[in-house]
Amino acid sequence: MFRYEPAAGDRDNVRRIVESSGFFYPAEIEVAVELVDERLAKGLSSGYYFVFAECDGRTVGYTCYGPIAATVASYDLYWIAVEQSCRGKGMGRRLLTETERLIGAAGGRRVYIETSNRPQYLPTRAFYERCGYTIEAVLKDFYAPGDDKAIFVKAL
Amino acid sequence: MFRYEPAAGDRDNVRRIVESSGFFYPAEIEVAVELVDERLAKGLSSGYYFVFAECDGRTVGYTCYGPIAATVASYDLYWIAVEQSCRGKGMGRRLLTETERLIGAAGGRRVYIETSNRPQYLPTRAFYERCGYTIEAVLKDFYAPGDDKAIFVKAL
Repeated sequence: MFRYEPAAGDRDNVRRIVESSGFFYPAEIEVAVELVDERLAKGLSSGYYFVFAECDGRTVGYTCYGPIAATVASYDLYWIAVEQSCRGKGMGRRLLTETERLIGAAGGRRVYIETSNRPQYLPTRAFYERCGYTIEAVLKDFYAPGDDKAIFVKAL
Repeated sequence: MFRYEPAAGDRDNVRRIVESSGFFYPAEIEVAVELVDERLAKGLSSGYYFVFAECDGRTVGYTCYGPIAATVASYDLYWIAVEQSCRGKGMGRRLLTETERLIGAAGGRRVYIETSNRPQYLPTRAFYERCGYTIEAVLKDFYAPGDDKAIFVKAL
């Protein structure tokens, strides 16, 4: 059900999954795809790790995460997304739990998630809170005027 | 006095300047040099911009900064460092002012600086405050247990 090694086809999988949410700006979608490109080009030294969720041979969700440079044991969760048609079935939580398991096994002790404080992200923020994350900081107008960044953290 | 285009020799300049402070962990020094490498390899598309300060033909300080992906007008100041022997002469402030001028000219509206809350960084934090930055957030144990991250911001 989970796989960890990105292949060339995952550029399209990631684009499809991220686009399906309708949440993200085009520039954000490009960033999501670029992280796959970085990993394909540089391997593990890219610092980008992935968990892909497969369902009936189809990739329906993923996370992208990695250690934060110059920290001892802190990790960023860069992306977590589940295809719109597969949401509401616990896939996001299973992906996040698997990701935390891998981070913990690699010696990670703190997981950070950054997200927009825009109203449309309220379900996202509630999801992180249900999964044990708490808001540690809010950076006002970070993404754009009126669009703050919330920083969640979970100690493993 | 200022120059903006990194050359191969700036790998050594950056290493020398950053090491001279005695502040940084070896892994942090490697990150500083890697940002020069990224810029030399990818050009402006690396997202890393530099200001180098020259004094009597010698590079004695620098900043590295860049736009934050998926934001409209936010920039990170990744590095600011002045060679130990040249400190206390206002070079850091001039480098920061020049960097802010360039960010503002490029459409940037918010500048973020992240730094350790370790006691040895107290003069650094005081410098940022004198330059108009305020602490917007503190992330506990971010760098390591007992080593928090402070996030400063200045609206241009």
